Amino acid sequence: MSSNVKRTVIVGGGVIGLSAALAAAESGHRVTVIDPAIDNHAESSGASWMAGGMLAPVTEAWFGEEARLALDIAALKAWPAFATKISRTAGQDLVINTAGTIQIALDIDDARDLERVRNFQNSMGLKAEALSRDQLLDIEPLLSPQVVAGSLISTDLSVDNRALVDTLKLACAHSGIEFIPQQVRRMTQVADRVTVVGTADGEFPCDDLVIAAGAWSSEILKMISTDSEHSIPVIRPIRGEILRLKSEITALRHTLRAHVHGFHVYLVPRANGEVVVGATQFERGFDARPTAGGVYELLRDARELLPYVKEMEFLEARVGLRPGSPDNAPIIDRVPGVANVILATGHYRNGILLTSIAGDLIAALIDHRDLPADAYLVSLDRFSGVTR
Amino acid sequence: MSSNVKRTVIVGGGVIGLSAALAAAESGHRVTVIDPAIDNHAESSGASWMAGGMLAPVTEAWFGEEARLALDIAALKAWPAFATKISRTAGQDLVINTAGTIQIALDIDDARDLERVRNFQNSMGLKAEALSRDQLLDIEPLLSPQVVAGSLISTDLSVDNRALVDTLKLACAHSGIEFIPQQVRRMTQVADRVTVVGTADGEFPCDDLVIAAGAWSSEILKMISTDSEHSIPVIRPIRGEILRLKSEITALRHTLRAHVHGFHVYLVPRANGEVVVGATQFERGFDARPTAGGVYELLRDARELLPYVKEMEFLEARVGLRPGSPDNAPIIDRVPGVANVILATGHYRNGILLTSIAGDLIAALIDHRDLPADAYLVSLDRFSGVTR
Repeated sequence: MSSNVKRTVIVGGGVIGLSAALAAAESGHRVTVIDPAIDNHAESSGASWMAGGMLAPVTEAWFGEEARLALDIAALKAWPAFATKISRTAGQDLVINTAGTIQIALDIDDARDLERVRNFQNSMGLKAEALSRDQLLDIEPLLSPQVVAGSLISTDLSVDNRALVDTLKLACAHSGIEFIPQQVRRMTQVADRVTVVGTADGEFPCDDLVIAAGAWSSEILKMISTDSEHSIPVIRPIRGEILRLKSEITALRHTLRAHVHGFHVYLVPRANGEVVVGATQFERGFDARPTAGGVYELLRDARELLPYVKEMEFLEARVGLRPGSPDNAPIIDRVPGVANVILATGHYRNGILLTSIAGDLIAALIDHRDLPADAYLVSLDRFSGVTR
Repeated sequence: MSSNVKRTVIVGGGVIGLSAALAAAESGHRVTVIDPAIDNHAESSGASWMAGGMLAPVTEAWFGEEARLALDIAALKAWPAFATKISRTAGQDLVINTAGTIQIALDIDDARDLERVRNFQNSMGLKAEALSRDQLLDIEPLLSPQVVAGSLISTDLSVDNRALVDTLKLACAHSGIEFIPQQVRRMTQVADRVTVVGTADGEFPCDDLVIAAGAWSSEILKMISTDSEHSIPVIRPIRGEILRLKSEITALRHTLRAHVHGFHVYLVPRANGEVVVGATQFERGFDARPTAGGVYELLRDARELLPYVKEMEFLEARVGLRPGSPDNAPIIDRVPGVANVILATGHYRNGILLTSIAGDLIAALIDHRDLPADAYLVSLDRFSGVTR
């Protein structure tokens, strides 16, 4: 390999790190991804492996977060081409479930709330279609007869996040990207550059460093002396219990979302009969042990939407640690005070959705290329008020 | 080894098979235990690994089953000496939890029922002590404040069934017993004797054969031509979901049992903070996949007894297949029509309890020694009406 080739080290082998690795390799960099779980995501509590896989800007849109919605919509639009591209590189098809999402109301108050949300969604130019109880039971016959009304958001899709991880890893392998299944222990810094990333067993020189370590990103950042004038917000782990169930029949076609007993619950079907039920939200540091209470609440609420849940096989109960920034929006930006470090984390509940655009944005940052107009939404400037 | 040494092959490496192996080795036999899961019980759905570990003749006693109670009481009495003996052979201590069992009533009707059961227990000479709500909360402070009354059965104990399996395996290893981690495929029969047990990779000659394959015992028996005049009842698998939870504090000291929402639920504490929650009862062949409904019901009912359950770590949800005979009592007897085959199965909910006496009884059958007076309770005669 020519010595003109620049070396990019990416800390974190989740969906953001892997898509950044692919984009950087495409830009001609020599890429190394370091992640202790890279050979065994099934043992990880990272959000990529534990996610539900919703590509759902509309049902994730909330009053007051209109600006971020543009980014989420752009990510959704980018998904089909992204899936095609990584599938081609990987040599295996990553299929998007295009059945859409149904928001469910279980009582009259819920139904009123759903109408209010639907008006908001429609006012933003998003298509949300009112469904009567009969229409709901017509398109999802195993829904609880207790459902009152619903909204169909046919553009809110889903993808099997574990298939996505596998596809990205395969695509990386085919792109000559190196995987190091180790924990980062130290950084060597020369003036304002990180020059070497060290693990227990190796030293990895880098021209550019990307920290895409999800909920662990602040732990990695601590190893670097940054510009003390620019505060970098702390990324906190937001734990979520998530269940995987399975049935031999197709119990569900659409993603279901509802508000049950004061909790948000979602059910995301997979083509193989699996249904992902998520997700609790709780902050308890890096504790990734599922609680009996979390499992109980998810099963209870899922049963209210889809009584057939009780017949399904209980495959697993696990905890994922979502990376949360102070405003719960992503951070994809250069780290102030060091010349060659990019931070890409804070994707919270939307990491799978944003994977379609994160890689290209990170590669543009590495190469000092022009950024898309939306990039300010994920910059660090919003925290410091400083314009760089 | 002298050619006078008789070879015993035991099919089934659960607690009954392993205790039989130890007793047969002690009687001077050369013993081989064949079980595909013997090196990895954690992957098995056998009842030994999945049990709660209750040593509970009193709380398992039901109206009309008085005769069997004698056997269960004898087994409980034998437990301390049995635990000491296998611990010594294994070189590691198997500890019995001697805190006793509490039966809980959650409402007035329950309390009345509990009193009726307590009168029955006391009429049988079993000690069951009435506890008021205050007394309950005094000895188990994390119990739900909704409890109404209880019974303390201080003689109903528990043992960690997985520690029991491990101790038995270690004792077997120290006793020169051979383990074959394979599935039995065929039997060679010469006249009225099984002479060789065959697996995929080996042939194991035997002078005596013990079938202690739990819920799979009838599948093994099918490989043998038996006396068609004596019907041998079919052993059916009775599945049970069972959960393992864990907390860092000691949330529970006694075994708890109750009737909640029409289901029996029990919580058995372990010294390390684990709590075993069981168990559903359902017949669905050899399907050992836990259902979401079973997990849900156990969590729901356990929470009603011990609200702290919701804070506990959810370690696992699994299914065990209990071996059930037509009358749900064990069968430990010679198989009619073959001279050298002993059946030891059907222990249903009481296999761990009966482990303390099953081994010696099986060894006595192998050696044609006199049997204890209670042995008729587990003989096949009760099904055929034939006295042999």
